[in-house]
Amino acid sequence: MTVPRIGITFGDPGGIGPEIILKTFSGEFSLPRACYIFFGSSLVIKNEEEALGIKLDLQPWDKKDSAGSPGLFLQEVENPLKAIKKGFPSVENGLASFLFFREAVEEAAKGGLKAIVTAPISKKSWDLAGIRWRGHTEYLNQAYPQAIMTFWSEKLKVALLSHHLPLKLALDKVKKNILLDYFRHLHQIIEKLKPREFEFLVAGLNPHAGEEGLLGSEEKKEIIPAIKQAQQQGIRISGPFPPDVIFRNALGLPDKIIIALYHDQGLVAFKLESFDTGVNTTLGLPFIRTSPDHGTAFDIAGRNLARPQSMIEAIKLAYYLIPRSF
Amino acid sequence: MTVPRIGITFGDPGGIGPEIILKTFSGEFSLPRACYIFFGSSLVIKNEEEALGIKLDLQPWDKKDSAGSPGLFLQEVENPLKAIKKGFPSVENGLASFLFFREAVEEAAKGGLKAIVTAPISKKSWDLAGIRWRGHTEYLNQAYPQAIMTFWSEKLKVALLSHHLPLKLALDKVKKNILLDYFRHLHQIIEKLKPREFEFLVAGLNPHAGEEGLLGSEEKKEIIPAIKQAQQQGIRISGPFPPDVIFRNALGLPDKIIIALYHDQGLVAFKLESFDTGVNTTLGLPFIRTSPDHGTAFDIAGRNLARPQSMIEAIKLAYYLIPRSF
Repeated sequence: MTVPRIGITFGDPGGIGPEIILKTFSGEFSLPRACYIFFGSSLVIKNEEEALGIKLDLQPWDKKDSAGSPGLFLQEVENPLKAIKKGFPSVENGLASFLFFREAVEEAAKGGLKAIVTAPISKKSWDLAGIRWRGHTEYLNQAYPQAIMTFWSEKLKVALLSHHLPLKLALDKVKKNILLDYFRHLHQIIEKLKPREFEFLVAGLNPHAGEEGLLGSEEKKEIIPAIKQAQQQGIRISGPFPPDVIFRNALGLPDKIIIALYHDQGLVAFKLESFDTGVNTTLGLPFIRTSPDHGTAFDIAGRNLARPQSMIEAIKLAYYLIPRSF
Repeated sequence: MTVPRIGITFGDPGGIGPEIILKTFSGEFSLPRACYIFFGSSLVIKNEEEALGIKLDLQPWDKKDSAGSPGLFLQEVENPLKAIKKGFPSVENGLASFLFFREAVEEAAKGGLKAIVTAPISKKSWDLAGIRWRGHTEYLNQAYPQAIMTFWSEKLKVALLSHHLPLKLALDKVKKNILLDYFRHLHQIIEKLKPREFEFLVAGLNPHAGEEGLLGSEEKKEIIPAIKQAQQQGIRISGPFPPDVIFRNALGLPDKIIIALYHDQGLVAFKLESFDTGVNTTLGLPFIRTSPDHGTAFDIAGRNLARPQSMIEAIKLAYYLIPRSF
């Protein structure tokens, strides 16, 4: 039986990425049966194996094995690392983590991977190395401008109308036509991945979702007309709901995706409820991309304190979202 | 020994207010030793006592007892109620709940009460009765325009820079001078109530608190200068912190009050973390005012399903905030 091929990128070698990857694959956890390909470096792995006292059963990846055999494989990515320096951003770590990621994305874009799971990079390291993108998301956004940022955990699923935008500019996106396009695009993506499994709940923009226009006009002028039109087009969507109520009410409901109208509306809620197990997923790419919802954690890197839960969830979610037609 | 006098207003007689008040005072819970004065009607109490099978030891309130004796007292407020209709807004319930509240506020403003704890009213009932304020807060705001809305629970304490404002208008309040005035005012209020007990953490406005100006300029231009100036004036305040991180990080820390820059930034977090035990407190009045952080719950009114936890917490918080000089 063939299994899907899932790329795993190491993230910043100075952060906790390699540690959580090794912990994830050390055998304690039951992971989906897949062909896992590490995009990284044997130097990083050896260093981490020694530090943790873990030895992975890792084979060199043979790209010609197009079917995908179950197991762990290493794609050695050319990189400038000479030694591993833990705990702070550096030029070498920035460049290496970019090269790991880029090679995985290129492989996935060619159809060689069904999904990529990315360990955290350091924006600061990328910046030091002169990498012009601010992170994974910005890199992907350039090639796939219609990509949508979503956040998944057992308790909450959140899709963001806009992502890294100043709040004032984010408010300008709350327009009927932009909303309607977004609803349709998100619907198409989700229906392709998981037909008829989810429905959308739209948060309001203003306190109490505008309270009949008393506390803001965007609900009446922009949001409600967009929702109505989306409903007429067969999209299972409702709202707008009071922002301070909807997250609480949707907690733990497996089939609801909340559409948040700006970054912090969604992420204040998500980070409170999904600490340690949250997964960040970019949708609308020709492949699935997930990542744990935490950073490089330089402060605890190299101290065997990092917990792999969010990485494990990121892998499970990536597998779950891969269309079953492979 | 004298005890402080605390007014309790019944809220909408058609909602769960009277039920949670009777449950709160039925003897099961340990409440602070105080002179509790109900601003309500014996008709409402009798109706609720029969429905719940509870009998309170309630004396008529003698206003001349200025010292304040421990116990439960009733101030019978003139009102139009002829019968109790549960479960929906009505003219009579709107007017009655307004009259209960107004009399308690007037008594407190004269110095007759140290605190008021208000059970939920229905905006709809007030509207039906032609009451021109939209709620307790709006009524208090008219007499005390500098009132500050705060939200308290064991897990989180949140102060709002602005309250019931459309988000776009709320953003206009994020100006250095407005912020500095607010910080000083809040500091003065809190220091008067609880000297040196709290410090303030200010949430940013933009994603990642603006990320060095990449994601918005208000942090650099308005918020940081206001915080610095407040610090120079001896106020224990820091920030701005990334909004999607600060609430999580402050969870359970007893001495932190988070300053949220708009309604939903604070209340999305607060309502997720403080369901059932949250208390809403208006500060900056000549008396303390608290209320449970829930509504009239018409859907369960009269069914003996309401839980008094939030009301009990509201009473405890009111007592805690009363200056110890009485």
